[in-house]
Amino acid sequence: MDTRAKIRLFVDAPLGADQSILMNRDQANYLFNVMRLSVGAWVSVFNGTDGEWQAEVVEATKRKGILVARTQSRPQMDPPDLWLLFAPIKKARTDFIVEKATEMGAARICPVNTDYTNSDRIRQDRLQAHAVEAAEQCGGTFVPPVDALAKLTTVLDNWPDDRRLLFCDEKKVGEIVANLADEQGDKWAILIGPEGGFSDAETTHLKSLDFVSSISLGPRILRADTAAVAALTVWQNALGDW
Amino acid sequence: MDTRAKIRLFVDAPLGADQSILMNRDQANYLFNVMRLSVGAWVSVFNGTDGEWQAEVVEATKRKGILVARTQSRPQMDPPDLWLLFAPIKKARTDFIVEKATEMGAARICPVNTDYTNSDRIRQDRLQAHAVEAAEQCGGTFVPPVDALAKLTTVLDNWPDDRRLLFCDEKKVGEIVANLADEQGDKWAILIGPEGGFSDAETTHLKSLDFVSSISLGPRILRADTAAVAALTVWQNALGDW
Repeated sequence: MDTRAKIRLFVDAPLGADQSILMNRDQANYLFNVMRLSVGAWVSVFNGTDGEWQAEVVEATKRKGILVARTQSRPQMDPPDLWLLFAPIKKARTDFIVEKATEMGAARICPVNTDYTNSDRIRQDRLQAHAVEAAEQCGGTFVPPVDALAKLTTVLDNWPDDRRLLFCDEKKVGEIVANLADEQGDKWAILIGPEGGFSDAETTHLKSLDFVSSISLGPRILRADTAAVAALTVWQNALGDW
Repeated sequence: MDTRAKIRLFVDAPLGADQSILMNRDQANYLFNVMRLSVGAWVSVFNGTDGEWQAEVVEATKRKGILVARTQSRPQMDPPDLWLLFAPIKKARTDFIVEKATEMGAARICPVNTDYTNSDRIRQDRLQAHAVEAAEQCGGTFVPPVDALAKLTTVLDNWPDDRRLLFCDEKKVGEIVANLADEQGDKWAILIGPEGGFSDAETTHLKSLDFVSSISLGPRILRADTAAVAALTVWQNALGDW
């Protein structure tokens, strides 16, 4: 029988047996007003590093509360070392990309500015909150960090030696998907373009880099959020934790 | 050089050389008011069966207009014979599933009622309009029909002899994804559950059917719209047109 509490909460606190966890105002409001939990109720909690714990409510008021972690219900499970680089698009779609990247097991989310990027600033805190919410919802114990917005060229110029980059090339539409299972290396990143794709200069530059492999995502042009899920699926299925 | 017009429009009319196409009021408003096209401009049009054509605007007023198809710019490309069965969820997510299924090349979209389905009616016309819009956007020449809502049990009881069903089983989370490339048959359907998954009775019934193969979509629980894209990717990559 699955005795894990249905409500899952990310907490910014160490977790271990008999560890007390102080709820902030938002969390107290959610648990005790919205979800109407009271003393003695159980909550699943995780902090991104110590696995998932079953915690008991020991104090509950409208504005604060204390949980105590009792038993670990899941070990910490970090995703494979896969980053998702994407060009921020319209707000709702950007939120979706962060949500989906978290569900799909990206280890780090990197918004990058490209030649055709529609917007040139992001709300990093808001996107990070979406990643937390998605981790709560999908049953994961890991929350991918959302980086600050950086220029694609800067990111490529400072690329780590030991990581490969999978470039989802719209112009390859109709070509066969590369056989990822033949690829080497356990550190990867996926790069998804904005609406309108990459500029010719970007495409030429990307193809000239020896850490880049390019793939097609089928014969139709996918929206950026669809492409993110599709590319993460292809990678997870061939090289990841599926 | 790509000389295809950027604006793509689905038209409910036969297409062939020198065929006139009467714009309805919405289309005329979009082309001539919103996009500010005038006589002599070009539009890419498709009707779901005759490929994509480059059509010239020959008459343009605020409320109506006439295009004439001149040359075929793409042959008709139907997707593989893959249906997507999904349980309608919250409105925005249901819209997303239809959009993504179209982009990902589903040939038919079948909303099904399950034991845990949140809503028991759909706006079929609205969902069909989303499929049309997604086809316009993704460069496809095919628009998947969106069926009326049916009960999953009814659909399974009347299942065609020659079609296999891929059951995305949340309870398999953590198990290895089946190797689809070993599966037989060219007619398939994918079944995605609602939030909360399938009931035990549904799972037992599905597993007892000889046309059903079940797969896991990785170790995290995916939202229904994420699961739809992921399952379509796995299938297209192994058996479809990627």
